[in-house]
Parts: sequence; structure tokens; C-alpha cells
Amino acid sequence: MKDFRQEISETSGWLSKIGADPSGGMTRLLYTKEWLDAQQALKQAFEAVGLAASYDAIGNLSGRLQGSKYPDQVILSGSHIDTVVNGGNLDGQFGIEAAYLAIKYLKETYGTPLRTLEVISLAEEEGSRFPYVFWGSKNVVGTANSEEVKSICDKAGVNFVDAMQNAGFNFPPKNQSPRTDLTAFVELHIEQGKVLETEGQTIGVVTDIVGQRRYSITLQGEANHAGSTPMSYRRDTIHAFSRICCESIAKAQAEGDPLVLTFGKVDPKPNVVNVVPGYTQFTIDCRHTDQETLERFTQQLETDIQRICAEMDIVPSIDLWMDEAPIPMDKQLVQNIVHLCESQRLSYRLMHSGAGHDAQIFAPHVPTVMIFVPSIAGISHNPAEKTAVCDLSEGVKILAQTLYQLAYQE
Amino acid sequence: MKDFRQEISETSGWLSKIGADPSGGMTRLLYTKEWLDAQQALKQAFEAVGLAASYDAIGNLSGRLQGSKYPDQVILSGSHIDTVVNGGNLDGQFGIEAAYLAIKYLKETYGTPLRTLEVISLAEEEGSRFPYVFWGSKNVVGTANSEEVKSICDKAGVNFVDAMQNAGFNFPPKNQSPRTDLTAFVELHIEQGKVLETEGQTIGVVTDIVGQRRYSITLQGEANHAGSTPMSYRRDTIHAFSRICCESIAKAQAEGDPLVLTFGKVDPKPNVVNVVPGYTQFTIDCRHTDQETLERFTQQLETDIQRICAEMDIVPSIDLWMDEAPIPMDKQLVQNIVHLCESQRLSYRLMHSGAGHDAQIFAPHVPTVMIFVPSIAGISHNPAEKTAVCDLSEGVKILAQTLYQLAYQE
Repeated sequence: MKDFRQEISETSGWLSKIGADPSGGMTRLLYTKEWLDAQQALKQAFEAVGLAASYDAIGNLSGRLQGSKYPDQVILSGSHIDTVVNGGNLDGQFGIEAAYLAIKYLKETYGTPLRTLEVISLAEEEGSRFPYVFWGSKNVVGTANSEEVKSICDKAGVNFVDAMQNAGFNFPPKNQSPRTDLTAFVELHIEQGKVLETEGQTIGVVTDIVGQRRYSITLQGEANHAGSTPMSYRRDTIHAFSRICCESIAKAQAEGDPLVLTFGKVDPKPNVVNVVPGYTQFTIDCRHTDQETLERFTQQLETDIQRICAEMDIVPSIDLWMDEAPIPMDKQLVQNIVHLCESQRLSYRLMHSGAGHDAQIFAPHVPTVMIFVPSIAGISHNPAEKTAVCDLSEGVKILAQTLYQLAYQE
Repeated sequence: MKDFRQEISETSGWLSKIGADPSGGMTRLLYTKEWLDAQQALKQAFEAVGLAASYDAIGNLSGRLQGSKYPDQVILSGSHIDTVVNGGNLDGQFGIEAAYLAIKYLKETYGTPLRTLEVISLAEEEGSRFPYVFWGSKNVVGTANSEEVKSICDKAGVNFVDAMQNAGFNFPPKNQSPRTDLTAFVELHIEQGKVLETEGQTIGVVTDIVGQRRYSITLQGEANHAGSTPMSYRRDTIHAFSRICCESIAKAQAEGDPLVLTFGKVDPKPNVVNVVPGYTQFTIDCRHTDQETLERFTQQLETDIQRICAEMDIVPSIDLWMDEAPIPMDKQLVQNIVHLCESQRLSYRLMHSGAGHDAQIFAPHVPTVMIFVPSIAGISHNPAEKTAVCDLSEGVKILAQTLYQLAYQE
């Protein structure tokens, strides 16, 4: 019998070829040929090990191992099959491989479960082809809104509905009432950060997925000649930005983990060496696992921006365009995984997810948990995305044991 | 007899039509048809009022009124005929108009001077077609290096030498030994700032032209996921930039006028909302009238950048690519103009020029001074560049009186 390391390498081997970029990395966008080829290849793999494979109305692919006693109680595990443009071969994909291999192992070792085990290859999470995220998981739990995708197009101008129909799925989706048979959802994913690597731990047990607030801010000052404008005459928007950035990051550091604050995009105008920037646009990304803290911190940040701009005779415009609440994972499932790690002396940590995942869509509807494995150097959304195969293997083992408890035990 | 306001409006009227952009503003680049048309029109105007007009080897145009007693002592006045792309109709051009009108007035009023009066329309100052500045004035004083222009091209790929020859000038320029007949150079120019406007003064008597140091700085940190990277793990280059900007501008404000410090260009990478910028490139432009202060301040700035980056585990690269010394104007000429303003109760201020001008090329070789008139809202290098005609007129009057003292008095 092959060990998990061999099985992971083999499965990743054939699946990663589908959508592989010539330069390395993967591009598998929703409803493209590469996407459909990957789902079809998975369908064959599911069927080859005796799972009943089928698509739902929008293209989520399931492989089911029917439970003997409680067939209508489904223990679901998986992740998304789509990738970002030129991404790696672990983000999303590894969660599907892991669920497939775990269920295959459980079937081979323990036979038929009491409850139904189901691996799911979710159609879409990244939003990298169309401006819509979590299309796959939102359709499972019934929170997708088909009206919202009707008029959206990809960069080539292809309409969402046309792309969906060309891939063989009807629009609007039929018989797509929310699933009521789900008893648990477990998602294994790479960390996409380097906390586990830095702390020398193998398993991250996710307790919360952060809430996020994202802003676009514009500062209107006055463009002036860099030589003929004394300092006291200036309404310098890059200076105002810098004050906002310094003060706010100092406050974020004082607030401490798990708060993170990022000024990712900064565009001063006219952006030339000898003109004082009269206009600057920038973004803020703030995350925390606690909604009240997130609100308090960002409200203070907005107040600080107003105060600094007033002091500098600059007119700010503050646009909060993303406001997602933190999502806690199921406490009992977290505890189960902690016990599994401890009983095996497997190094683990309780941690939050700073990134969004399909699990946050499931969690309000069904007991949900996530398991993280380390990302080498924290790299993700990049061809260099990598995790040591021994760590991938430990992740699959913990997932298999978790699914065993949920599906085989009373 | 027309007054100066009428004459300024008329002269500006016909000259501004040459190279006028359909959208407003002017584009008159070195050795283009518009440039040649403007020089030819000026040549005719000079000749029409009895000045001996001629080009030098590279296309500087002169109009001379020969002195009766000291014909080889030349009092030179003018500015540059080229513009930036879509610039205004005062920067450069008005200095030529003013010298032409002042000499015309002096000739009509006082006849032949003792020393020779010469208006000069300098070929090039802006560097807006080819990457070479002060081509006109540097050829007059003998500091241009023809080797340096041999291999440079404009944006369309046209070689400097070809452009020069097509305009009717030989390369390398012949008989272009530095002029030794210059006794004084007086340049009238718009301020291109709003100090005169803000302070309610009509005439700026320039005491110094600032020295400039310009830097390109790169900061190498680490690009990280905005959600999964705790604050303490980050090597955030936009945060490092912000600290450098805030600390340095605070020091510049404490240092006080005439020091100016500008962070004009900032380019973080990858410049997206949800990635910590792992790389940032930015520029620094620092100016002062005193060389020692400029050196001390920028050396401290370099030290601060190194310290801040060391604290944040960021690798800076500091490239000082422009280092121009401050240039003082001639003290006697400054004093002459101050006396003229005072004797006429004309509001004036002693001030420095924060921008570069042809005068800085002349000053090391011949007694030189500049006269500023106000720029409305400080706007320049822009179609909206404007000065009230009464202020332009006061400028021409002061220039005429200055030239009178220099050319008609023993």
C-alpha cells in the first residue's frame, strides 16, 4: 500500500498538469477548458475509487461515499479548483486532493461509514476571471445571487452566463435549492503566511477567519513647483499620506495581533520628481478576528485621516468598499482536531486565518473548521508556492482522522 | 506712443501664435518647425526696429544695438524661446519680449547707447525635446559639450545632430568660441511660484538661484499577504518610505526657508490592495541657496534613510543623480534694481529662485541678475500660466531702467 506522501505526489502530478502555465505555475479560470478538464479528470478519479461523482447545477463536483446508517447526514470536505492567474498548485487544489485521498483511505481501511462522506471540488473562489468571489460555495449554501452574475464579463469581454453555458451548465441554475444535508464542512488549506514555518509547527487549527475592511482614500491638495513653493505654502498629499501611514501603523502595532493593517496601493499625481503631489489615492486593508475591535480601530483610523487632513488643508474622500464580518469556526470541531494533534504529539497551534476561504461561506450554515499546513516562506498566489510533502502528508492524516470521527463514530 | 501694456499684448499676440496647441498652451521644441518659425519671426521684429539680427552657430538669435563708445562691451538680456510640451506663453518667451521691448524703448527714447545692447532669444533651456538642458546659454559661455549631444535622440527617435542640421545649423558648430564681450546679463522671468502674489509684491529681485540635489531611492523589503502576515513579520517598504518622508519633512520645516524638500514620485510594488509592498522606489528633490546647508541636510537625510531601513530590515539603495551648486547673482546689479524699485515706490522683495534658469549658466562668467514678476496662483509649465499685464509692464519698465543704467551711463 502506498503511503500518503506517494499518493499526494501522484495525485498532484496529474492534476497539476491541467492548466499548467509554460513558464511554471497554474492558470485555471472558472468555466474555461482547463477548468472543465480538471473537473472531468477529478470526476474520473472519484469514480475510479468507488465514489458516486456528480456535478451540481453550477459545476461544483462531488464524490460521495454513502453512509449506511445516516445517509442524509453529509460530512463534506474539499476546496476550490480555480486558481489565480499564474498561481501555484496548492491553493484550493490541495484541499480537494486531501479530501479525496482521505476518503479513499477511509473507504479502503474502514469500509462504509455511518454518515455520508463527500469530497467537493468547488467551482470558484478566487474571483480571478469574473468580478465575483465564492461562486462555488455560495451556491451550495444558497447565498449566491444569480442576478449579480448576469451582467458581468471577463477581461476578454466574455459574459459570465455565456461562459457558464459553454461549459455545459444552464443559466439560471435549476434545482439549486440550498443543501440541508450538511452536517460538517472541513477544509484543509495551505497557510499562505509564514507563522507555522517561523514557529516550527506542522498543523494550524483555525479558530476564526478574520473580518476585513477595505478602503479607497483620495487626498486632494495642490500640485506645486518643487523649487518655487516654500514648505509653508504646500498642500502636499504624499506627506499627508505618510503621516496617516506612520500614525496608523504605530497604532496597529500597539493594538497587537491579530490586527493587521496594510497600505498596499499608493498613487500620487503627477508622480514626477519636481512637483509636489497635489493628489494621492491609496488603499487601506484592515483585518481582525473580532468585529468590535475591527470597527473601533477603523473608525479611529477614519477620524485620524480627517484630523491630519484638516491640519494640512487637504480634502480627503473616504470610501469603505469592503466590510466583511469575522467568521468563527465551530468550537467542537476545533477541539476535536486539537485533541488529535495532542494525542499524536504533532506540533500545532491555534490560529486565525488572515485570508478569506470557502470555509467562511459554510460556517454560518453548518459546523465548519479549517486545517492549515505550512507554506514555505509564506509564498502563495505564485508559481513558487510550496509546502514540504511531509507537511502535506501530516495534513491529510489529520483530515482523515477528523473525517473518521465525524463519519464512522456514533 | 503705445504704452508698455499695449506693446506687450501685441508682441505676445503674434509670437504666441507660433507653436500654439489647439487645446490652448504652447509647444515649441528645439529645432522643430515651430521653433524655427518663432526665431524667424523674432528676427524680422528685431530688424524692423533697427537692431542687427543674427544667429550664432547653434541657433541662438541676437538683436544688437551697437554702442557708440564701448561697442565691445555688451549688455545682454533675454531668455529661452523653447517651451515644455503644452506649456504656457510666458516661461522663457516673456524674457525675450521684455528685452526686445525695453531695447526698442531705449533706442526710441535715448538713441544710441554707450555700450552695445543685445536682446538674445536662447535656443533651448527646458530639455523637453532632447535629454539635454541649457543648450542655448551653455553655447554662449562655452560650457556646452558637443560630444554629449551626438548620440541623444528625441522620443520619436530623431537624432539631435539630424534635427539641428535640418533646422539649418551645422554640426559640430563652427566658430563657436565662448563670448568674451559680455559685460552683464539680465533675465526677466515669471516667478513660477506664488510668493510675490501671496505677499502682494510686484517685483522679485533674485539674489541666488538654489542648488539642487535629486535622488532616486529604492527600498527592498518583502512582499507579503496582507491577511496572513502579522505586523511583526513584515518588511513593509511603504511604511519605511512614510517614516522617511515624515521625519525628513519635519526636519526640513525645522530648518526653515529657503530649504525645500519634495518627495514627488512614489512607486510601490506590486501596488495592490492586499499585498504588503515589498519594493518601493521614490525620488527626493532638495534645494537650498547655501551649498554647505544643502550638503549637511542631504547627508543627514541619507543617514536617516540608512538608520530607518536598518531598523526595519529593509535594504536601501541611494542614487544621487543630480548635484548642482547654488549660484549667487551679482550683488551690485541686485543693489541697482533694489534702488530703482525704492526710488519709484514699487513693491519688491529680495528672493531666491527655486527653479533653474539660463541666468545660472551666465552667472559664473559675467555679472548676472534676474528680475521676477508674479505668477497668478503660482502656475507654470501649464496652459493656465498667467501674469497680470500690469505686472508684466512693471517688469519691462524695471528691466528698461536697469539696461539704461548699464548701457547709457558711464
